[in-house]
Amino acid sequence: MNELTLVRGLRKLGNGIGDDCAILPHGREDLLVTTDLFLEDIHFLRDQRPEDLGHRALARSLSDLSAMGASPRWFLVSLALAPWSGPEWLRRFYKGALALAKRHAVELVGGDLSHAGKVAADVIAIGSAPRGKALRRSGARPDDWIWVSGALGGQPTRPEPRIELGRWLRTRATACMDLSDGLSLDLHRLCLESGAAAGIDEPLPLAPGASLEDALHRGEDYELLFTSPRTRLVYPGLPLTRIGRIVAGPPGRVTLFGKRLKPSGYDHFAQPRS
Amino acid sequence: MNELTLVRGLRKLGNGIGDDCAILPHGREDLLVTTDLFLEDIHFLRDQRPEDLGHRALARSLSDLSAMGASPRWFLVSLALAPWSGPEWLRRFYKGALALAKRHAVELVGGDLSHAGKVAADVIAIGSAPRGKALRRSGARPDDWIWVSGALGGQPTRPEPRIELGRWLRTRATACMDLSDGLSLDLHRLCLESGAAAGIDEPLPLAPGASLEDALHRGEDYELLFTSPRTRLVYPGLPLTRIGRIVAGPPGRVTLFGKRLKPSGYDHFAQPRS
Repeated sequence: MNELTLVRGLRKLGNGIGDDCAILPHGREDLLVTTDLFLEDIHFLRDQRPEDLGHRALARSLSDLSAMGASPRWFLVSLALAPWSGPEWLRRFYKGALALAKRHAVELVGGDLSHAGKVAADVIAIGSAPRGKALRRSGARPDDWIWVSGALGGQPTRPEPRIELGRWLRTRATACMDLSDGLSLDLHRLCLESGAAAGIDEPLPLAPGASLEDALHRGEDYELLFTSPRTRLVYPGLPLTRIGRIVAGPPGRVTLFGKRLKPSGYDHFAQPRS
Repeated sequence: MNELTLVRGLRKLGNGIGDDCAILPHGREDLLVTTDLFLEDIHFLRDQRPEDLGHRALARSLSDLSAMGASPRWFLVSLALAPWSGPEWLRRFYKGALALAKRHAVELVGGDLSHAGKVAADVIAIGSAPRGKALRRSGARPDDWIWVSGALGGQPTRPEPRIELGRWLRTRATACMDLSDGLSLDLHRLCLESGAAAGIDEPLPLAPGASLEDALHRGEDYELLFTSPRTRLVYPGLPLTRIGRIVAGPPGRVTLFGKRLKPSGYDHFAQPRS
């Protein structure tokens, strides 16, 4: 990889292109690794409940694993504390993260701890999948149906990573990713990776109180967006909704009831709030 | 692990106690994982050469792998850019990191990219070692000799992680760690983990221009500190110096020519500079 390719790659990464995790072949399995920054004033505000922040910091990384159908195994947390975040904040932050970790049998194995002007966390999650079986963004093919799990636009305080669903989809989906930045942007990305276009032509499953705009552009749903040739998919305990179809067309183009839908969700590479 | 234990564990982590990497049994190997924050105004200043910073950010994590005798395999970089660090800074930062990665055949496999008020990097390095063979800090026993590699106190701009030496030590050392925070603090930590005391009673190998104080307390040497029952160790191309002996005594106590030596190296958990 030359330097320019690398920087282009990093820009893509910053724009959420590529898969949700790195795939590392090891032994008989593939290891899936993801690292997600969770920064004060970029991804959260200091007045939010520390338990919710701890939950959300880990949920974002576990959601990346779920998007690839991985079984989560371990996580690490690099954390720079700020002058305002004392031991009690730290305790409550970890309380939120560990409650979620326990439910998914993910083990905290290490990290780093430092200080900075603002809180900066980086959560690294490692999972595994049978060799070659991890779900990718690139497998969608024309005529595949487009599906989403759960309800969109609600921006839950404590998003639930769809770990079990991700594993279930390994034998059923052709492509998968998690909805972290909004359907319009994330479906655009999935289509780019798959070299295809998409048409949304069914009503979206809206979270209570959410508008169509919220569902399309608000982000932070952490539901799964996936494609499958199957017309019918029933998963116990969580609604799966068929919202449209993959079509041949300019890679990345998405239409909503026939009209061009511009990708305009949350951009991680945006400038920080002051 | 209950919450209080955890927070105590995190404090220990912040103080550099515990091993340099997490050990994850997987297949026939142990995976070694380390995550190291590299923060503007804490670990570096913005006027430093970006190539040097990229090198140093990765070298710190590779040094953690070397301390455990691991073979480095992959790395990921989570990076929040600041308003002052543009595409050219990013290119040069990665140029420095990738040149080092190439020499050690470590592959960049992913990361995250965001923005913040100051540059914040987190480098995750993953290596492997035969199951149960990783070097720990806890294996030093009374009468073991204490050794260091290279020269101390020089705080090199581009520290060289001692990957090959670490692997060579797997069958020769009883305990090992890297000298990131200064000999007085790091030897104290090794002794704490091993439940033993130490006496330094030989001249230290000083880097050109370095004082004894520099060698004891300055940190950022990234040489290896290890113990071995062997009286003589010869390693091609890099001096190994016997500096003292592990003794029975209060865990963590270190003496220098018979006088108590207080641990006073760099503390990662110190408050940030403003």
